[in-house]
Amino acid sequence: MGDFNQAVVLDAIRRSQDGISRTELVQTSGLSTQTVSNIVRRLLKQGIVSEGEKTVTGIGKPRTPLVVVPNSRFAIGVHLDPSVITVVALDLTGSVAFRSREQTGLGVDAATMVARIAEIIEQWVASVRIPPERLLGIGIAVPGPIDEAMGTIVSPPLLQGWDAIRVREALRDAVGLPVLMEKDVIAAAHGEQWSRDNDDENFAFIYLGTGIGAGLVVDGQVLRGASNNVGGIGHFATGSTTPLCSCGRSGCVGAATQPANLVAWAIERGVLPPLINGADSGEVIEAFVELGRLADKGDPGARDIVDTSARQLAVAVENVASLIDVDTVILGGPMWHPVSRRYLGILGPELAARYEVRAIHGIDVTSSVLGEDIAAIGAGCAILDHMLAPKQTGLLLQD
Amino acid sequence: MGDFNQAVVLDAIRRSQDGISRTELVQTSGLSTQTVSNIVRRLLKQGIVSEGEKTVTGIGKPRTPLVVVPNSRFAIGVHLDPSVITVVALDLTGSVAFRSREQTGLGVDAATMVARIAEIIEQWVASVRIPPERLLGIGIAVPGPIDEAMGTIVSPPLLQGWDAIRVREALRDAVGLPVLMEKDVIAAAHGEQWSRDNDDENFAFIYLGTGIGAGLVVDGQVLRGASNNVGGIGHFATGSTTPLCSCGRSGCVGAATQPANLVAWAIERGVLPPLINGADSGEVIEAFVELGRLADKGDPGARDIVDTSARQLAVAVENVASLIDVDTVILGGPMWHPVSRRYLGILGPELAARYEVRAIHGIDVTSSVLGEDIAAIGAGCAILDHMLAPKQTGLLLQD
Repeated sequence: MGDFNQAVVLDAIRRSQDGISRTELVQTSGLSTQTVSNIVRRLLKQGIVSEGEKTVTGIGKPRTPLVVVPNSRFAIGVHLDPSVITVVALDLTGSVAFRSREQTGLGVDAATMVARIAEIIEQWVASVRIPPERLLGIGIAVPGPIDEAMGTIVSPPLLQGWDAIRVREALRDAVGLPVLMEKDVIAAAHGEQWSRDNDDENFAFIYLGTGIGAGLVVDGQVLRGASNNVGGIGHFATGSTTPLCSCGRSGCVGAATQPANLVAWAIERGVLPPLINGADSGEVIEAFVELGRLADKGDPGARDIVDTSARQLAVAVENVASLIDVDTVILGGPMWHPVSRRYLGILGPELAARYEVRAIHGIDVTSSVLGEDIAAIGAGCAILDHMLAPKQTGLLLQD
Repeated sequence: MGDFNQAVVLDAIRRSQDGISRTELVQTSGLSTQTVSNIVRRLLKQGIVSEGEKTVTGIGKPRTPLVVVPNSRFAIGVHLDPSVITVVALDLTGSVAFRSREQTGLGVDAATMVARIAEIIEQWVASVRIPPERLLGIGIAVPGPIDEAMGTIVSPPLLQGWDAIRVREALRDAVGLPVLMEKDVIAAAHGEQWSRDNDDENFAFIYLGTGIGAGLVVDGQVLRGASNNVGGIGHFATGSTTPLCSCGRSGCVGAATQPANLVAWAIERGVLPPLINGADSGEVIEAFVELGRLADKGDPGARDIVDTSARQLAVAVENVASLIDVDTVILGGPMWHPVSRRYLGILGPELAARYEVRAIHGIDVTSSVLGEDIAAIGAGCAILDHMLAPKQTGLLLQD
């Protein structure tokens, strides 16, 4: 499946509105008639593409358009978060055919988590009776940084003990499918790009989860970097002197926007009641949602906390946008929704006033359309790209 | 010249150590025998490639290797700096065949500067008697931001009146060659990439000139961004509260490293004598060189000023490196040399201690090998890439 020329052909078929003929494929790809013909024969035999109705235009052979068969193959996307497992299945067009989302609670060990992911996938496969050869593989999005060579997560803050586990290998062994591991923020950018399908896009995807990160799409390419760890913005300086970050410096944007910190300040100032079960529980997320709701309602204390963090984020986003020259900033991730209204109201005007190349182009600040499942969907898209897109992803597919 | 398949073929020939045969070109490119044969015939006729000695290996037709003819075509590279004009000519391998560098003094108007550039180019062409059809075009590197559509420089700080001039068009009209305009920091990254010739490279090129900027090469591609203005890092926050930047904020890295500011502080503290001709003269550069020399020698006042700016730069570089996940940071540009020894001694250890993914890979901090002409050379390389490299540059070539 991994052949470059086949990817060129399949990508051209996928992108064609009403199908594309063999002759047109030869013209657009520069490949020989023989090569195109061999690839198409193979794709037809595998059921990945089908022939549409022949049309006759003028003299000569009738034109037979080729189209992709959406549900001939599926990609699985998984998002492993410290307390949530999300699993999706995507058809060849990237549409979600299946979705599962469950809270696991914090502190679940790696083996249990991998076993549960495998179970969810197997139950779905059994229920829809898909033969294994129609499953392309599993993309798994995890909190970064990742060690790509080892297939491990490096020092994950809320996944104690996980760095000793070869996640990619464990999941492959449990399910028996090829597995590709990707940093969550990069997966999210990948998913966003698929949903937009604009080849020349430039955007920064600001991902708000347990931590903060930025997925980057520049000149239509998802950036991965030297070790597939693009997107570390947690320690971007905001110019503010508070709060103190775990790295020892003051004013890092990660510390300034972390839900746990915002909730702690709100409790300190009496905006929110103290937590019953402590800072490591799911209660922080509920409290964060409540903080956002209070700020939206006009509570001055809540508004001050949320707006201050938004202004600090604006500095970091301005720096990211100036560095990579994007005209679009998209925000999303599991912790985005609670603060999205206040944040959007602050980020847009701040960037419009200060962005370095504002004389040349504006900058569009917007919410992701993909919602909470974005990293899982993006991880599935990475698998589809392995098959469909004629470019290197730079990711190791373990099979 | 701009044909994609031809670029694929030419690139393969250029990269082959001992030449590559037509049969090998068909195998590596996936293009048809007919397409390869047509392209090679055209390139031979134009004198861009030549046939090496035939070799017989086993039965069948003898192998005829194809090699690039270095001086069959030339690209011109120009760097327009507020007070210096640099012009180079590169052959097809990127080697410098001609170099000119002259001080113009500040405040020279656009028309005079363009006329002088044209004169330098014409004198060289006349002296070596190169027929015009062997000149591929002119790449011109300018201080950013640029307005790519208009071919203008946007509000250049030290080039008053220049934003009203269509530089790209004016130069094309003056010389009669296609012109491509590129931001200086992007051109510098381009030049550095050519000189390294490693396809999978990831590096940030920190360019120190009148201002500061970062050229980015990620996954082997020079990034250009939505408006060809990648690299704005001047307003990255350093976490320090001094000095005040022209943007109204405190602690921007651009202000913290600007030669004019460092010289002003040195004069204030009695480390350097007052300037005779004022801050806008070439004297600032001489004073900056002297400041670097004093710091190298161990003068505590000079050392404090230079080292403080190096530590502020380290924060910005750390942010850039974490965001785009590079394993190499290269520093260069016209203002790099005076402070390079002190800066390297501080940047390396600071990054090694703090870089976010240091558990996975180290980060190499190094000086550019290309020296002061880097932006001019890089602009010439951009022209060569238009012809030789099978990828979109996203730049408008005005012809």
